[in-house]
Amino acid sequence: MNNLNILVLESIHPSGIKLLEKVGKVNVKFNLSKEEIYNFLKTTHIVICKSVINVDKEFILNAPKLLLVGRAGTGIDNFDVDFLKFKKIPLLTVPTGNSISAAEFTIMCILNSIKNTTKAINRVQKRDFRRDLLQGRELSQMTVGVVGLGNVGKLVVERLHPFGCKILAFDNKKNGNQNNFNKFKNTFHVESLEKLFRDSDIVTLHVTANNQSIGMVNKDLLSKAKKGLILINTARGRLLNNEDILEAIEKGIIKEAFIDTLYPEPSYSELPESCAYKHPFLNHSKITIFPHMAASTEDAQKRISLDLAQQIKLFLEKKNYLETSI
Amino acid sequence: MNNLNILVLESIHPSGIKLLEKVGKVNVKFNLSKEEIYNFLKTTHIVICKSVINVDKEFILNAPKLLLVGRAGTGIDNFDVDFLKFKKIPLLTVPTGNSISAAEFTIMCILNSIKNTTKAINRVQKRDFRRDLLQGRELSQMTVGVVGLGNVGKLVVERLHPFGCKILAFDNKKNGNQNNFNKFKNTFHVESLEKLFRDSDIVTLHVTANNQSIGMVNKDLLSKAKKGLILINTARGRLLNNEDILEAIEKGIIKEAFIDTLYPEPSYSELPESCAYKHPFLNHSKITIFPHMAASTEDAQKRISLDLAQQIKLFLEKKNYLETSI
Repeated sequence: MNNLNILVLESIHPSGIKLLEKVGKVNVKFNLSKEEIYNFLKTTHIVICKSVINVDKEFILNAPKLLLVGRAGTGIDNFDVDFLKFKKIPLLTVPTGNSISAAEFTIMCILNSIKNTTKAINRVQKRDFRRDLLQGRELSQMTVGVVGLGNVGKLVVERLHPFGCKILAFDNKKNGNQNNFNKFKNTFHVESLEKLFRDSDIVTLHVTANNQSIGMVNKDLLSKAKKGLILINTARGRLLNNEDILEAIEKGIIKEAFIDTLYPEPSYSELPESCAYKHPFLNHSKITIFPHMAASTEDAQKRISLDLAQQIKLFLEKKNYLETSI
Repeated sequence: MNNLNILVLESIHPSGIKLLEKVGKVNVKFNLSKEEIYNFLKTTHIVICKSVINVDKEFILNAPKLLLVGRAGTGIDNFDVDFLKFKKIPLLTVPTGNSISAAEFTIMCILNSIKNTTKAINRVQKRDFRRDLLQGRELSQMTVGVVGLGNVGKLVVERLHPFGCKILAFDNKKNGNQNNFNKFKNTFHVESLEKLFRDSDIVTLHVTANNQSIGMVNKDLLSKAKKGLILINTARGRLLNNEDILEAIEKGIIKEAFIDTLYPEPSYSELPESCAYKHPFLNHSKITIFPHMAASTEDAQKRISLDLAQQIKLFLEKKNYLETSI
């Protein structure tokens, strides 16, 4: 045992904490005030957080002993990456830890979007069994456009492949991913987003939110879409121009949307009775909304927690921090 | 054109009717009384129906010119097959026409069962975004038992395969199907239903209802199941012993059930306000019910209608009925 102090500021799966206890003294502290955090930071060597705690310049300056920051998951909008680099403090992440869960959730959305699932369940509860009113589609006869072939998008293509639907894939990075699916006879790479939207019955988004992609699904792109499009977004809410989506639904360009990620995001801890969150998509008859849960499976959280703890352990071993006292 | 009279007694997709019009005079007549049907039958050469019209001995005896019966779909409980054979009247069916739709629907049920889908949609509609209360599972980390490797079961296995879950498959017929999945490293054949239920987190049924299979999911089998089982039934309601299912839910053996086919079946045309149908599964918090719709997609109905019409055309050509006048 050594004198490393590990401060866990957001909830992670216990499996990782168990492993971290082998490398240092773990302090699990949620919902602290800024002052309380800074007080703990004085003696902290390793900080672990997720997407809520802001690891900004001030935070970092208040942590004189900080060796390492761990992000339990992917997405680092809440970290001052440049300042961490300047201070030579590594930021460890788990970029693929929840990709499988997100891909599975996407396939679930795609199937629900063509099977009238929610409508059917609600009707049967009211003793309405008129299945003729619920006739859906067969995925095998449709075209699915997958935008982005990164960690999640490529897993979506793999899972879609045996359904026999035509798959159109677009990725603006000319990297190796393009060749991964040449073995699938029903998967085709298209050279532009416009072509993908023009030829797809269902479009699902799997790109990160950055200056190029924010608002990419807008009026202009949608004007080129196949009429009656089903849009799935389990990536980031900011990829959509909300107003343009509503207009496209109004015009019948978009038939239905399945949205896991809203922008702006609601609070995920507030009680419904005190929740003042408003969003034009809420309770829209053509939009099905989930609470940014695609990646939130027990299994993914466990994998992320363990993976991060293992990375931290390896890093410390490599730097000999586990053999020497700080 | 010849003098063949074709009587269509239940709704089929127009594409098949269009084709049938090339081989004879098509009469589409729904909701007839028995008397009216028998009156039409006097001059009918070909009858087409689905699952509602009873083609029994009396029906057949009232059709002196009957050459052929077509069942738009699979399942022939409503046909007196022996008497048709005795009268040498062929019965054409489309046994695989809706298999893909049924397999897709099953994957949808499996994913919904582990992602808290319905609960999430309902909560968000009430502005409750507490995703921590909805943490689901990742299919990749689970074991799915597929009972029956016939037309639907084998398609379910193919679609499950890339999800990376462990797949246990059981088929009591020692036919070629067993070898189909040896290429899938995550698919294993088990020698008994008991073993499948013991080791699976999710079990999905794909067997026909016959003397051997009716009531097969009963107290005895469930007593061997893994605690917390998710049960999917898109095959036939009679495979389950309803009372034993409810008891297993009560005991926590079954965590949740997704049921497309109830026994006894409700009427699929009745208005909810006049529907007197009762079933112990209805509005049960752990049972999600669909109105026997797994196969009811626009695409499957079109395929079935066209396939049946083509079979009829081929049969008539082979027998030279299309060249000679009846």
